[in-house]
Amino acid sequence: MNFCSHCGGRLRVAIPPGDHLPRHICDACGTVHYRNPRIIAGCIPEHEGRILLCRRAIEPRRGFWTPPAGFMENGETLQQAAAREALEEAQAEVQIGSLLAIVHVLPVEQVHIFFRARLLQPRFGTSPESSEVMLVEPADIPWPDIAFRSTEFALRCHVDDTAAGRDDLHFAEVERRMAE
Amino acid sequence: MNFCSHCGGRLRVAIPPGDHLPRHICDACGTVHYRNPRIIAGCIPEHEGRILLCRRAIEPRRGFWTPPAGFMENGETLQQAAAREALEEAQAEVQIGSLLAIVHVLPVEQVHIFFRARLLQPRFGTSPESSEVMLVEPADIPWPDIAFRSTEFALRCHVDDTAAGRDDLHFAEVERRMAE
Repeated sequence: MNFCSHCGGRLRVAIPPGDHLPRHICDACGTVHYRNPRIIAGCIPEHEGRILLCRRAIEPRRGFWTPPAGFMENGETLQQAAAREALEEAQAEVQIGSLLAIVHVLPVEQVHIFFRARLLQPRFGTSPESSEVMLVEPADIPWPDIAFRSTEFALRCHVDDTAAGRDDLHFAEVERRMAE
Repeated sequence: MNFCSHCGGRLRVAIPPGDHLPRHICDACGTVHYRNPRIIAGCIPEHEGRILLCRRAIEPRRGFWTPPAGFMENGETLQQAAAREALEEAQAEVQIGSLLAIVHVLPVEQVHIFFRARLLQPRFGTSPESSEVMLVEPADIPWPDIAFRSTEFALRCHVDDTAAGRDDLHFAEVERRMAE
C-alpha cells in the first residue's frame, strides 16, 4: 500500500494519535487506511454420507482437493457466501447447516469459516475453478492431496463429528502456509 | 476508492474477466482491488450474574451503552480481538468463552462476532472510548439506550440463554442502521 485510494497522495506508515498500531496515513487528505482480516466462507456439502470435494483448477494449490470456499462479498451473509461458492465452484445447490469450524489463517490475514451443508440434489460439475468435482466416502478422502490446512481441519472435524454423532463448533489457528 | 493504492493510477469500475461483480481496476498496473466485509469482534463479560457495559465516549452512538467490541486486527484470533477490546475499552481482563452470536450488518459491510466471557477480576474502568463502565443485572439493562442493533441482539441472546441454561450460537442480519 503506497498511495491513498481516496486522493492519490503518498502514504506514510505511523501510529495515529489515540491508536496503538502503525497504519497507512495520507497527509494530503488525512485518511487513515486500515488493513483487516478477510473472510473465506465455505461448506462441506454431504449427500448420503459422501462428501463433495473440488479439485482446484487454479493457483494456489492447483491440482489439490478442497471443499468449496472463497472470499465473502459485501452484501451477503456467511451462509449465502458459502452457498454461492458451492454453486460457482462445483455447480452444486446446497442447503447450509450448522457452523462447523473457524480457522484463523494468520500468515495470509484471513478467517476461514466453514458450515455443514447438504446437497439439494446429487448434481454437480466442473467450473473454471474446479477441474474435477466428486462425492467421496469419508474413508476415501485423499488426505495427502487436500489443498489447505484450514480445509483439512474442517474436513477432519466433520468426519469425526459425524462418526460420533456430534454437531460441534471447532476453532483452530494456522501459523504457517501449507507450502512452507 | 478513486486511486490505485499500489501505483497511484486512476481506478475504473468494471467486471474483470472470469468475475461476476464490478471491481475497482487499475489499468496502469493491472491490480484488481476487492472490497470485503470487515469483522467486529466483541464479548459479553459477566461477573456473578452481572454484565459489563460501556457508555460510548465517541461517535457513532456516543452516550449509548454497548458491550466491548471493535475491529479485528491482522495477526490476532477472534478471541484475542474480543479480549483486547475489553481491555482497551473497559480496562477489563476477560476469559473468552463460547461463541454467542454472529450478526451480518449489511449496510456497513461488517460481520459482528460476539463471544461469551467472564471477568477475571471485578475490576474495570473508563477509557478514551468509554465515558462510563458498569456491571449491570440483566433486569437493569438499559435496552432503549443500547448503542447498536447487533449488540442489542447479542445481549438479548445472552440474557435469554443464561435464563434458560443454554449455550447456543445465534445468527442475525441487520438490514438498516440504528439511526435510520
